[in-house]
Amino acid sequence: MDACGASHDALLQLPWLPVSISDCHLLAKSWFGDSAYHVLLTDTHSVWEERMDSAAIQRRAQELNKRLRAPVKAFFAHLCEVAQPTLTGSGGRPDSESLISLTRRDDGNISMKLKSELAGLPFYWEFHCTPAPVTVVCVQLVRPLLAMSQLLQRQVEQLGGLLMRKDVEIQDYRENGATLSRERLQTDAFEEQSHREDFMAKTLPLLQHDTPSFNADLQHLYATIVAHGNTRKRKLSEGGCVEEEPPTAEPDLPSTLAGPVRSEPGETGEQSANGKLDTARAKMADRASEQQPRATSSDPGRPSSKPKKKKVGLFR
Amino acid sequence: MDACGASHDALLQLPWLPVSISDCHLLAKSWFGDSAYHVLLTDTHSVWEERMDSAAIQRRAQELNKRLRAPVKAFFAHLCEVAQPTLTGSGGRPDSESLISLTRRDDGNISMKLKSELAGLPFYWEFHCTPAPVTVVCVQLVRPLLAMSQLLQRQVEQLGGLLMRKDVEIQDYRENGATLSRERLQTDAFEEQSHREDFMAKTLPLLQHDTPSFNADLQHLYATIVAHGNTRKRKLSEGGCVEEEPPTAEPDLPSTLAGPVRSEPGETGEQSANGKLDTARAKMADRASEQQPRATSSDPGRPSSKPKKKKVGLFR
Repeated sequence: MDACGASHDALLQLPWLPVSISDCHLLAKSWFGDSAYHVLLTDTHSVWEERMDSAAIQRRAQELNKRLRAPVKAFFAHLCEVAQPTLTGSGGRPDSESLISLTRRDDGNISMKLKSELAGLPFYWEFHCTPAPVTVVCVQLVRPLLAMSQLLQRQVEQLGGLLMRKDVEIQDYRENGATLSRERLQTDAFEEQSHREDFMAKTLPLLQHDTPSFNADLQHLYATIVAHGNTRKRKLSEGGCVEEEPPTAEPDLPSTLAGPVRSEPGETGEQSANGKLDTARAKMADRASEQQPRATSSDPGRPSSKPKKKKVGLFR
Repeated sequence: MDACGASHDALLQLPWLPVSISDCHLLAKSWFGDSAYHVLLTDTHSVWEERMDSAAIQRRAQELNKRLRAPVKAFFAHLCEVAQPTLTGSGGRPDSESLISLTRRDDGNISMKLKSELAGLPFYWEFHCTPAPVTVVCVQLVRPLLAMSQLLQRQVEQLGGLLMRKDVEIQDYRENGATLSRERLQTDAFEEQSHREDFMAKTLPLLQHDTPSFNADLQHLYATIVAHGNTRKRKLSEGGCVEEEPPTAEPDLPSTLAGPVRSEPGETGEQSANGKLDTARAKMADRASEQQPRATSSDPGRPSSKPKKKKVGLFR
């Protein structure tokens, strides 16, 4: 399952996108390779994933489409084309016949059923998402979110310091008899403690109606941190799993940001960016926009209309 | 396992404390009830937990201490007394004979072995921590961290707005010919974009040596958010698990902050605080300080020296 190993690094670079399937609102990451995919979903109560390689896709396609006799590559492009708009939250539907429905099963799994049309015949697909391993949740959510919180906390402190310096400057002007041309321009002196308390009291209730959970600023910060983490990850000589880490290794931010990803030794060089914000931003934009083109870009090679010509090749 | 149900709410109120066992640095939460405990550990690569009720503790104590014939209550206080200082990162050892060692096992589990002395005889204990369910990781880390990031992001935005208002005021003073008594008091105009880029470029590398991962400010914010969440949780009429939620439920911050905790219906009224910062802060302090007293506070009832008197009652 090489594709799956690599897919973890590809997924790590992707933002968590809000998606809505069957009136169920989730955050999603989806990676579609050449003939493999990796989907991550979360409602913040749990996290689900499905990793499928070429062989597994072939088997399931056979089970769901008895008459299908085509190789994976012949219908995978169509699967991407139909599934990706939904899984990236872009909402657009490639064709009106395509339908994706989500079901939460009693066993705690999530099933996404896809009904489409390929070569003039119905094409069925099902994503079977099961609870993700804790290590995946840590890599994709806990570690980045912890680093984000630390960075933002520091930024809050720094801005607080800047505000107090502004107040000192303002105070000096006033003491020298300076006056404002408009009274309303006068600001209150910044008091960190009281400001934070006031902010919390006012903002906590407001956030109750805040959607999506992962706004653009946070997605951007997530991308920056993940890119920075992968840069350090590339530099690490040993790329083992947690158990292989020296017991003296501190779980400090570097490891939080960039510790080796357990059970995903897949190379990251191609996927990762350097720690600079601009690069990270560019990459963020790339990733976000990539998701859409990825499906369509594969069309020239294997357009969804192409199979119609060799209908016999696909279905019997 | 009532105690375990309640323990989840008790744990949620606790801060993530940095602990160091056998040169292994982790973040930990531990709850010790009357004769039950719940331990959560994370190195941010994975999360482990062990929940033990009275019966399970009795069985293991028997296995590890063949000659032990005492009821749980007779030795549980001693177990708390020996284990809690380590699990709360307070470092202090109740007695020099007590030793706790941590081993990461190949199966991905964590084993903490405790050797102590009770009633003049060696007393052994083992914590068997296995990877925590994803739902627990979501409740204890993902949801609070996501809410923390959102709050901090908003605070950064608000402080940026304040800085720009200060600049407008300063600009007005200057335009009216005001001058500074000391040149060094002059500040540069705040430019959000460039400031953020500069901050990221400077802070990301610095954070590499940042420990612990969960500093006091973040622990405080964590406690505030969790307390706010539990307040809303108490107000919720239905207290089911994820699957029972109406599919139309938005995964927005209210649910992120306060959605019903899957598989932990334990009552929260006693544990939770209202959303106000002061109360949350007070509770935070309570929780943090509680951990220590909890073990010692049980001493008067059953001091570790007491068993010596009825040595026969403990060991045969």
